Amino acid sequence: MEDFLELAKTRQSCRDYLDKPVEREKLERIIEAARLAPSACNSQPWSFVVVETPATVAEVADSTTILGINKYLKSATAFIVVLEETAELIQKLAQLVDSQTHAQGDLGAAVLSLCLEAESLGLGTCIAGVFDRPRLRKLLDIPPEKKIFMVVAVGYPKSERVREKSRKPFAEIVRFV
Amino acid sequence: MEDFLELAKTRQSCRDYLDKPVEREKLERIIEAARLAPSACNSQPWSFVVVETPATVAEVADSTTILGINKYLKSATAFIVVLEETAELIQKLAQLVDSQTHAQGDLGAAVLSLCLEAESLGLGTCIAGVFDRPRLRKLLDIPPEKKIFMVVAVGYPKSERVREKSRKPFAEIVRFV
Repeated sequence: MEDFLELAKTRQSCRDYLDKPVEREKLERIIEAARLAPSACNSQPWSFVVVETPATVAEVADSTTILGINKYLKSATAFIVVLEETAELIQKLAQLVDSQTHAQGDLGAAVLSLCLEAESLGLGTCIAGVFDRPRLRKLLDIPPEKKIFMVVAVGYPKSERVREKSRKPFAEIVRFV
Repeated sequence: MEDFLELAKTRQSCRDYLDKPVEREKLERIIEAARLAPSACNSQPWSFVVVETPATVAEVADSTTILGINKYLKSATAFIVVLEETAELIQKLAQLVDSQTHAQGDLGAAVLSLCLEAESLGLGTCIAGVFDRPRLRKLLDIPPEKKIFMVVAVGYPKSERVREKSRKPFAEIVRFV
């Protein structure tokens, strides 16, 4: 694999999907990429609910398009609901920090990993951080002690066009010493 | 780019580096990969101090090998110190959550992105979440309002061997509905 930067450039939020289901095998590969992500002390503070049944997909879409946000996720044909699990750190670190200190960063890495694998399989994704938590929790039978971290929409993109990314200029975010 | 899963498998924590400096151009590509990472409302809550001067590299290594943790980072020839910046969210989201709610996850994604680009350039990385913060802050002139998120060691790996990853079994972390 020589061109990771190329993949990083083509991964983008997909907001319009074809009416075409995502194959189970591809969903499994996507989760496998998240499973291999690095985490503090290899604590792997994550688990995933993959939503592929059309009726449930529609309900997750409804739960995610609230307050006028995320409206464009209505056409996604699958969702991955990412849950935060208890992180078990090695003793030396656990003496210094709360066990969940690094969990959010670890989950962020796992989510990016699954989006990149989706992209490399020709799929589009969109990460949503705002949703109707109680509704989603009830719908997917998620126990109260597990926090819902993110909901990732997945599907075949309607357009192949790669948009120019809007980012802060390189020189503004880096300093060499 | 067809084989992201292959890259995800080969990326691993590198704990022993060759005594060979990392080219500036490669360090720039690594930061570029982080710069392209996704973030909540495209808030990009990150900046980077790239440490490449040998004397400073040695001091960062010292600051990172505390409490018997991270001893193996002594041979790294560069470090990337990742800082948390203020996230500017769109108004709709800012009304719902504290501006930094998603920053840790976003930073985790940026860190994975830079590690993956390093891997694709033949470099090794190791992410360290424990370090002597006051010492690092003073050494790198980091203002008190910026939080140091992670320190990433970078260098040419001494060994090409890809270790088998130890992860929770697939079936334990995923549920299809």
